[in-house]
Amino acid sequence: MSTTEPSPVRRRRGRGARERILKAATELFTAQGINATGMEQLTAAAEVSKRTLYQHFSGKDELVHAFLRGMEDGLLPPQVPPEMTAREAGEQLLAVFSWPPPDPSAPLRGCPFLNAAVEVPDPDHPVHRLAATYKTEFARRLAGLARRAGARDPDTLGEQLALLYDGAVARSTALNAPGSGAVARSIATSLLDAALGPDGRPAR
Amino acid sequence: MSTTEPSPVRRRRGRGARERILKAATELFTAQGINATGMEQLTAAAEVSKRTLYQHFSGKDELVHAFLRGMEDGLLPPQVPPEMTAREAGEQLLAVFSWPPPDPSAPLRGCPFLNAAVEVPDPDHPVHRLAATYKTEFARRLAGLARRAGARDPDTLGEQLALLYDGAVARSTALNAPGSGAVARSIATSLLDAALGPDGRPAR
Repeated sequence: MSTTEPSPVRRRRGRGARERILKAATELFTAQGINATGMEQLTAAAEVSKRTLYQHFSGKDELVHAFLRGMEDGLLPPQVPPEMTAREAGEQLLAVFSWPPPDPSAPLRGCPFLNAAVEVPDPDHPVHRLAATYKTEFARRLAGLARRAGARDPDTLGEQLALLYDGAVARSTALNAPGSGAVARSIATSLLDAALGPDGRPAR
Repeated sequence: MSTTEPSPVRRRRGRGARERILKAATELFTAQGINATGMEQLTAAAEVSKRTLYQHFSGKDELVHAFLRGMEDGLLPPQVPPEMTAREAGEQLLAVFSWPPPDPSAPLRGCPFLNAAVEVPDPDHPVHRLAATYKTEFARRLAGLARRAGARDPDTLGEQLALLYDGAVARSTALNAPGSGAVARSIATSLLDAALGPDGRPAR
């Protein structure tokens, strides 16, 4: 082993700092927003020095980017596994509109990617571009499920359901009430029914 | 006339400053967002002193409030005038999804009320409360049009179309592409058709 290899102790310490920074960023960006959160507050919450923060992230943009990348897998609809049935795919399409009961002590904050696109308006900025890519991938995943469910025009249905999802989360954020999920789900159910055969089974 | 009455000259000058401040706030909040816009930048853009700005607005919150109030009338769907026919009401319901071609030199910025709710997360903050009130009024106006159009359940249709609108503007903002307006309009057309009689005329 080369002597330039960091010792296990140092590496463990380094990982811990990065994780604390990302955890603090996730909590503060979610609670307050990106622009309302300063680097001073982030270092204090993560219990790291500014120097340590900049060792892990080149600046706030990279930290926002890492925060968003960390949310992707938990928020994107699933890829379609080979064994998924048409019925399961249809259920997954509607499941994106069923949210767990919100924490009553915290404001509803909707979708971090929509929020980032609002806070970073420049469409050429890496953070805005990441939000746009995510939103495109969101619709693409729904289209994959719609295809497996047997929908007539899965790409259109994917885009429609993605729009309903974005409407539900944006409206829930503004109203601070989760009821829009059920409104979106009822429209989504009608669209899915119309895209499938008249007996509710796949059209092909 | 009392001597404490301000002279016409002084009053005209005062109104000019207020208008310049509001114009600068509207331009900067729209282009950059609320939290990315500082008071220094606002005073510079409005060509007023900080003292003058604080003579007209107690602080940034009041300025954001005034900016949003200034947008309301141009963005809310119309109230239903007594002479409006069912057919006209139906057309108005769909007209909210037809946007003028965007300025290609500026990012799409969607709905300033949704954006303000994202930037000011606290649901008890006056700015967030104004956004929530606006979004509720938006659905109420659509329900009024839906009632005149002859929809079976106008309140539900109003809430559904408001959600579609919010989805279209939120998604357009993230993707920086206006195509979501047409997607929302096609869903809205289906919902309106279903809420009216089978021949497309009012159900009652």
